[in-house]
Amino acid sequence: MAAKATKTAARTAARPTGDVADLRLAARGRGRIAWAAGQMPVLAELSRRFARQKTFRGLRISACLHVTSETANLVRALVAGGADVLLCASNPLSTQDDVAAALHEEGVAVHAVRGEDRDRYWRHVDAALAHDPQITIDDGADLVSRLHETGAAGAKKVLGSLEETTTGVIRLRSMHRDGALKIPVFAVNDAQCKHLFDNRYGTGQSTIDGIIRATNVLLAGRTMVVAGYGWCGKGVSMRARGLGAQIVVTEVDPVKAIEAALDGHRVMPMEQAAAIGDVFVTVTGNRDVVRREHFAAMKDGAIVCNSGHFDVEVDLKALAGLAARVEKDARPATDTYVMQDGRRIHLLAEGRLVNLAAAEGHPAAVMDMSFSVQALTAAHVAAEGDRLEVKVHTVPEAIDREVAALKLKTMGLAIDRLSKTQERYLASWREGT
Amino acid sequence: MAAKATKTAARTAARPTGDVADLRLAARGRGRIAWAAGQMPVLAELSRRFARQKTFRGLRISACLHVTSETANLVRALVAGGADVLLCASNPLSTQDDVAAALHEEGVAVHAVRGEDRDRYWRHVDAALAHDPQITIDDGADLVSRLHETGAAGAKKVLGSLEETTTGVIRLRSMHRDGALKIPVFAVNDAQCKHLFDNRYGTGQSTIDGIIRATNVLLAGRTMVVAGYGWCGKGVSMRARGLGAQIVVTEVDPVKAIEAALDGHRVMPMEQAAAIGDVFVTVTGNRDVVRREHFAAMKDGAIVCNSGHFDVEVDLKALAGLAARVEKDARPATDTYVMQDGRRIHLLAEGRLVNLAAAEGHPAAVMDMSFSVQALTAAHVAAEGDRLEVKVHTVPEAIDREVAALKLKTMGLAIDRLSKTQERYLASWREGT
Amino acid sequence: MAAKATKTAARTAARPTGDVADLRLAARGRGRIAWAAGQMPVLAELSRRFARQKTFRGLRISACLHVTSETANLVRALVAGGADVLLCASNPLSTQDDVAAALHEEGVAVHAVRGEDRDRYWRHVDAALAHDPQITIDDGADLVSRLHETGAAGAKKVLGSLEETTTGVIRLRSMHRDGALKIPVFAVNDAQCKHLFDNRYGTGQSTIDGIIRATNVLLAGRTMVVAGYGWCGKGVSMRARGLGAQIVVTEVDPVKAIEAALDGHRVMPMEQAAAIGDVFVTVTGNRDVVRREHFAAMKDGAIVCNSGHFDVEVDLKALAGLAARVEKDARPATDTYVMQDGRRIHLLAEGRLVNLAAAEGHPAAVMDMSFSVQALTAAHVAAEGDRLEVKVHTVPEAIDREVAALKLKTMGLAIDRLSKTQERYLASWREGT
Amino acid sequence: MAAKATKTAARTAARPTGDVADLRLAARGRGRIAWAAGQMPVLAELSRRFARQKTFRGLRISACLHVTSETANLVRALVAGGADVLLCASNPLSTQDDVAAALHEEGVAVHAVRGEDRDRYWRHVDAALAHDPQITIDDGADLVSRLHETGAAGAKKVLGSLEETTTGVIRLRSMHRDGALKIPVFAVNDAQCKHLFDNRYGTGQSTIDGIIRATNVLLAGRTMVVAGYGWCGKGVSMRARGLGAQIVVTEVDPVKAIEAALDGHRVMPMEQAAAIGDVFVTVTGNRDVVRREHFAAMKDGAIVCNSGHFDVEVDLKALAGLAARVEKDARPATDTYVMQDGRRIHLLAEGRLVNLAAAEGHPAAVMDMSFSVQALTAAHVAAEGDRLEVKVHTVPEAIDREVAALKLKTMGLAIDRLSKTQERYLASWREGT
Repeated sequence: MAAKATKTAARTAARPTGDVADLRLAARGRGRIAWAAGQMPVLAELSRRFARQKTFRGLRISACLHVTSETANLVRALVAGGADVLLCASNPLSTQDDVAAALHEEGVAVHAVRGEDRDRYWRHVDAALAHDPQITIDDGADLVSRLHETGAAGAKKVLGSLEETTTGVIRLRSMHRDGALKIPVFAVNDAQCKHLFDNRYGTGQSTIDGIIRATNVLLAGRTMVVAGYGWCGKGVSMRARGLGAQIVVTEVDPVKAIEAALDGHRVMPMEQAAAIGDVFVTVTGNRDVVRREHFAAMKDGAIVCNSGHFDVEVDLKALAGLAARVEKDARPATDTYVMQDGRRIHLLAEGRLVNLAAAEGHPAAVMDMSFSVQALTAAHVAAEGDRLEVKVHTVPEAIDREVAALKLKTMGLAIDRLSKTQERYLASWREGT
Repeated sequence: MAAKATKTAARTAARPTGDVADLRLAARGRGRIAWAAGQMPVLAELSRRFARQKTFRGLRISACLHVTSETANLVRALVAGGADVLLCASNPLSTQDDVAAALHEEGVAVHAVRGEDRDRYWRHVDAALAHDPQITIDDGADLVSRLHETGAAGAKKVLGSLEETTTGVIRLRSMHRDGALKIPVFAVNDAQCKHLFDNRYGTGQSTIDGIIRATNVLLAGRTMVVAGYGWCGKGVSMRARGLGAQIVVTEVDPVKAIEAALDGHRVMPMEQAAAIGDVFVTVTGNRDVVRREHFAAMKDGAIVCNSGHFDVEVDLKALAGLAARVEKDARPATDTYVMQDGRRIHLLAEGRLVNLAAAEGHPAAVMDMSFSVQALTAAHVAAEGDRLEVKVHTVPEAIDREVAALKLKTMGLAIDRLSKTQERYLASWREGT
Repeated sequence: MAAKATKTAARTAARPTGDVADLRLAARGRGRIAWAAGQMPVLAELSRRFARQKTFRGLRISACLHVTSETANLVRALVAGGADVLLCASNPLSTQDDVAAALHEEGVAVHAVRGEDRDRYWRHVDAALAHDPQITIDDGADLVSRLHETGAAGAKKVLGSLEETTTGVIRLRSMHRDGALKIPVFAVNDAQCKHLFDNRYGTGQSTIDGIIRATNVLLAGRTMVVAGYGWCGKGVSMRARGLGAQIVVTEVDPVKAIEAALDGHRVMPMEQAAAIGDVFVTVTGNRDVVRREHFAAMKDGAIVCNSGHFDVEVDLKALAGLAARVEKDARPATDTYVMQDGRRIHLLAEGRLVNLAAAEGHPAAVMDMSFSVQALTAAHVAAEGDRLEVKVHTVPEAIDREVAALKLKTMGLAIDRLSKTQERYLASWREGT
Repeated sequence: MAAKATKTAARTAARPTGDVADLRLAARGRGRIAWAAGQMPVLAELSRRFARQKTFRGLRISACLHVTSETANLVRALVAGGADVLLCASNPLSTQDDVAAALHEEGVAVHAVRGEDRDRYWRHVDAALAHDPQITIDDGADLVSRLHETGAAGAKKVLGSLEETTTGVIRLRSMHRDGALKIPVFAVNDAQCKHLFDNRYGTGQSTIDGIIRATNVLLAGRTMVVAGYGWCGKGVSMRARGLGAQIVVTEVDPVKAIEAALDGHRVMPMEQAAAIGDVFVTVTGNRDVVRREHFAAMKDGAIVCNSGHFDVEVDLKALAGLAARVEKDARPATDTYVMQDGRRIHLLAEGRLVNLAAAEGHPAAVMDMSFSVQALTAAHVAAEGDRLEVKVHTVPEAIDREVAALKLKTMGLAIDRLSKTQERYLASWREGT
């Protein structure tokens, strides 16, 4: 509890302010952070470089991220580079309390408690603003949104802001289009080393993991309805099929819908899919994707979850409105809504990110790439200082290339190099048939 | 603890003797049993039939099985049919203590505590013998072996014994070949509705589940070495590939080795595989499959686990002998052996069944088939009484057919029926080209 | 033409009687036989052994097989061992005329012409009987059936008959059950090295190959209905999915139907499948699997083919009855039936084996195993002479083991060997938990 | 032959000049064009629209494309819109002579003969220039390159030029970067409805098809080395794995290399891959990808082919230099190079596009999308007239959207539509956690 952290802080002068669940969990948290570190060799390499170069000396960084063992390794890399980092949660259900405790104990101001309510969540975000950061890191744009709402963005003390998610990048582009954006932001999500891997292989495995931990259902032979066939939806579909599920894809984009069909999945509107699905997963970045009329059509025993950033993809109010009663925690992270007609619909993780709330989020090996892009982009902002234009920047290509090359090396893989002749051939338009 | 159970027993006259960890877990156990029941409609149907027909009236049944929510539903079906059932664990690490408590509280004599030591394990088996059963159900043949060792089998009061595993059936066939078998046994494992589904789809998903819960590693891009390409090995390979792993298969049987190759996997001796694997899974039914020379060749960070019945497939002594020290519980169910040369090898679940010790075992939907075969075979023994020959029986085909037909129906699937003309065609040898 | 073969025969004393399409194709046939030989190293090894040992000295063998480049290599191996071989076609549409010519030219009596009519087909079978064989080899049991119909089987001069197909084995078992079988037969199909590979990987790839050569349709995104989920159906489904098709399986056996569902395919009766399929493939071994009511329900543009042994699986008469007209050879091996309501249904290869009639049959690498089993089983019959019991024999396990071991070696793959300790462990029932 | 076409032309006043192999093949060509038309409903819809609107009235179009049944349907659509179309081959080995004859007979000036030599190839390209086109369509940029080499581009009479391939677009971008580009060009390849489908699903299936038609090898259990993991390489890898091959990927781009690894493929430099591959496929767009040192390392029996646009990916001179002799046409489209050390390396289709030279190119269903983009982009050029800027244009998004929507509809698939609330949500940055 806050009290607990504060009390401990009283005993140790250097201890930062913060709000974590239970400092006694720190030892277990340290263990898990170390385990993740073993899977994150690129970030470890960058951490050593930052420590040598004091890349972030004198900079305050506020990060609003899922508080997991992987995030802890990013925070440590920033701290190694001299940054004064404050960390708050980007989702009320994704915090790993043991990791929060461990980070807090080693001197990072952590404001994150698993299961925190809405008020506490926003108090934590506000603490991140009060940290007066020169760099912010966001997962869903809550920090940067609050910066703008409160007018703090206008003061222009933020050199740059980094955004991790598809959802957040969509928001930031909207802000920019509306002329509302006041600070330079980087669409970290759009870096190749981020979205091609994290969104696909990370979300793919961890979403399935969340569903199985929550329900222990056999996926083989079940019909899984995947709403959205972007990188996340492609990843979830690929992995669920890999476990024997039949996939039904719903989409609003005809190009993605054809891709899904040619990948061998069935494609149909949610209205039809609702009646045949055994498991539903939303990964659209949009709201009300599964709603009243769909719940009404579902089979008895249907399982519904979300792996998109916000808990708006499943219309929770509609579900509650249809239910005669709710049986909480039928299984871990599983609530059973008993409909007035007797059908039972199982909602996982209260409609929040099932991969983080019912499992442990993306595996460290994939976050190694995403967070290495974050770390190098933060270093880029630190180097640019106040010279960055106010707009949505893409991550410099050199960062993508460097992360990919380092990752490949740490995976023990070698590849070919272009010869001079080949480089010349690619650049030439004179060599022919 | 035993003490606790006994003490509670003192309070409730009807309470059976037994040894479970903590009766306070009963409520959670009941919840999980109910959840599994929702996935086991065939067994539910049989349970209703047994209750109507009092199929097992007056019979004592001792079952030595993994004490899971699925097993609980089998036990309940037998009890519904009038049986007096005693349940002991078939593995020291696979008991779900909450399920044990729940069953115990509803009057079943349960002898099973997760993490029990060797002595306590065998005391529990002996309690099962002391129950003086007419029917026994085994998962690994420990009960039937003990029956023979103690000479109790000779008394021939056991009408029939049912065996769930490949490993157990191999043992029983050996006993029979040696002229040592004294009671009729049924190779339940060999029924189609058992091994084609449980061993493949059940072991497949749950083994992957165990590995991910224990380590949270990204399987995509990792090399997984699967030792054994029987039904279990096929299932594990199929699912690991489905999550993006590259599979290397080791085998001793050339036919299975070619199958693995034509399924697109690499095949090589363990000696070579040891040096390239990131994750090792044994499913052979044999001992010392991963041993000293293999540990010596492994990469730093290799993960080793077993999903075969006994904990002999990985040579634990050899591993301990090579290690400078062991870090216990680096993650749940994960011990890290630090070699004298500094390499770290992670052993999951102490070399016991990783799907049961680090996850929850086979999903209920697949155990619905296996345990329905068990239930109907038990009913067959009850009906035959003392008329069964002393040998290894196969499960009557009619049982396979009935379970398959019921399962299909509960899955909501319809299939074609042979017309008279088609039946005649299949039976005829006179219709030609 | 027969005339041509005969005329040529006149020029060359040693030339056998026979009936092949055109001897001028012999050179091309030799090239293709040589190419296939390159993929059949096990058979080559056996051929050298037979030549050394004169295994079949003085024996007449009649083989009724698909006359392909792979079969040619089997025939050559038998001839190398001293056999006097006559070869006739086991299907009117599967003969490769260039291969027939080549074999004929090197002295084998070949009676096989692609596209031969029913009468000519049976004249060829009769020529095989007239050869007065001591060993027969069948693919679909036509030779052995004719032997019995004509009463020739009663003379018991046939030492043993070998059967290659599931369909043929079903027939032979029926004959035996009816007390009609007069000669010893071997269910070569049931050898592991045959059905596990040829039926699955061979039929899988070659059926898809036949469909694509005939139609050049994109399989990705199409719904393929596979009737029958035995080894052939499993192979076809696996490969079609591998090319992006959505699979619908129809079955009459509930166990196979559940397997199909857990493999991620949809399962339904043909009545429903008929309306949603884009491509239909039958591999059931039964008749009238696709029939009048199904044609009536099909979509415009549906493609229908068979990969089972006989051309009875698709009810051709019903299709013809529904059609207003037929457009022959819209594409190679493709006839378009224009229904009275204007819908077009495309029938491939006249309902005969699409993998042989529209492509080249199983790849040589897989026939290497099947035909090595045939060759060693023939050698077994030669060795046993007239000592074999009249019944349906299974292929001796030693043959399976030898073929598998040789194949593995020629694939360049090594596997593990059981240690003494491991062998003892597997044989023992005394080592425990 | 040319003579033949000319002679025929003499008989029919309306017949265009041209050079096709044999007009007697026209009937078969018409049949195949009609068959492809049945798989190209979007193009059919556009064709009707063009006919109504006379979209291309008075315009001369020169198209340098693979002369296949799919291309014929594109040409017909342009002709329906009033264009005066000349068609020449974009590759000496990809022309379907029957299709060329059919198109020629219906009045299109076709200059394309399968197997034409280098001189004749360029004479055909020059005929296309002599047609004095306002719009050109290219597959590999040969036409537009020649336009620039000859100085004809400078005259600026070409309103716009359309390019179909990745390879061609790379060239055009190089020209533009060098300031050499003189006419507006459209990177049709980069449209979503082109490269996401044609390059992946089209090249995937058709490359496998070409390899199997040429060699009939069993892919299951073989190691296929795929050079390049762009969209084409992803497609080939996906489909080859789908047929049971083990994939090894070689790359020069680290991001693509990691993708390949996480997709479960092995990744290594060609130097290592050369020694373990059974089949090699190049799809890089670069030259000398398989070269002397690689041939030197290959196994006996290795199969080498190319599915990239130009025949430069495999170093043919190096291969010839190493060979003691060449056996032509061991199988269709297969030449066997016998090395001085006796190893045999099989080269397919003389190193040209194996999917077109040994099979029939992309299936019509996927070309329906690519050519509909071409057709609508041509219409866009026609509408813009001389207003287009000289640069490499991307295809207008509206064209992508329209093709996708039409395709989806003709596939019989429906999808969801955004509600007003959802649209607002996506556009807003004010709605939060």
